[in-house]
Amino acid sequence: MKSFRKELTLNTPQRREFVNLTPRVEDAVRESGVREGLCLVNAMHITASVFINDNESGLHHDFEKWLEHLAPEKPYNQYAHNGFEDNADAHLKRQIMGREIVVAITNGRLDFGPWEQIFYGEFDGKRPKRVLIKIIGE
Amino acid sequence: MKSFRKELTLNTPQRREFVNLTPRVEDAVRESGVREGLCLVNAMHITASVFINDNESGLHHDFEKWLEHLAPEKPYNQYAHNGFEDNADAHLKRQIMGREIVVAITNGRLDFGPWEQIFYGEFDGKRPKRVLIKIIGE
Amino acid sequence: MKSFRKELTLNTPQRREFVNLTPRVEDAVRESGVREGLCLVNAMHITASVFINDNESGLHHDFEKWLEHLAPEKPYNQYAHNGFEDNADAHLKRQIMGREIVVAITNGRLDFGPWEQIFYGEFDGKRPKRVLIKIIGE
Repeated sequence: MKSFRKELTLNTPQRREFVNLTPRVEDAVRESGVREGLCLVNAMHITASVFINDNESGLHHDFEKWLEHLAPEKPYNQYAHNGFEDNADAHLKRQIMGREIVVAITNGRLDFGPWEQIFYGEFDGKRPKRVLIKIIGE
Repeated sequence: MKSFRKELTLNTPQRREFVNLTPRVEDAVRESGVREGLCLVNAMHITASVFINDNESGLHHDFEKWLEHLAPEKPYNQYAHNGFEDNADAHLKRQIMGREIVVAITNGRLDFGPWEQIFYGEFDGKRPKRVLIKIIGE
Repeated sequence: MKSFRKELTLNTPQRREFVNLTPRVEDAVRESGVREGLCLVNAMHITASVFINDNESGLHHDFEKWLEHLAPEKPYNQYAHNGFEDNADAHLKRQIMGREIVVAITNGRLDFGPWEQIFYGEFDGKRPKRVLIKIIGE
């Protein structure tokens, strides 16, 4: 069994942002040399997500509006978590969008349907945060 | 290490529907010959989910009503994604229900609690869509 | 390839509760002897979650309040599932918080960011329920 590990660092200019990670994960799969296996991609921070959905800016706008409706950032004092921090909403938004994805690797490539793309969802950005890629297989 | 891959195709008559995949995933585990390992089951399309919950029609009715409340299909023009499409709600619903599940395989079987069943959640159906089963182990 | 399996049993005094599982999962990783691999932790019951977020009591209070807002326990008769049972809300809450987590194992340890902690989310407690830990790797 082979295993491979790689970290990505993201530093988004906005508090909330979606970043397409697909090319960087494809690079990691190539570097790993794994032909058949599983690829885990997870946010290493608890106010961010990794998820798979459509690479379409209108939809990302809809995600932003929808998540703000389900777990609004303000007023900050609606959340018990916001004593010394202001990011309780980011912890909630990340639960909707998820921490991680697991993708099959087949014939040395991400085994994806036609529209699947991997995104980093940042909900409390403007500082460096990390994503972990771990690959196991043969 | 062994690996095994299988695709299922689903074509639901309704726009939204829940389909029990458990027997088909059990078949795949048998075919794989894997005794100890992990089984990934994921929607290959971004307007559908694979999730584990109860095989109970009342609950599925509750899911439908609840998801429509959290991410309503109509009016279509409430979503920026709905320029040429009408399925933005399906992309949102799929985030709540999730893309994939990972199940342990122990002694050649899905290692499940008493009520766990695997479901395909279709949110934009009436056309053929695929689910991926990938198994690794020994 | 090595594989390792362990069950935890939880019996929360309250209907809803969050329990930190991190030390028990770390123990399982040590017992497994796996240095490089993947660790799956999942609820074996369909009214509970395993998720990764912050070990902060204010945030757990926010989760409780938020989940009750998104999928209220009462009135019981708002849910079709609640004929003989009263736990439909627990099945819904578990979809938001997720069934399982998959964590990388690197150098014999959970490969975590600085604040990642594993929680059991109970939404229909006061009885013994199980969590599965499955580890594969080398």
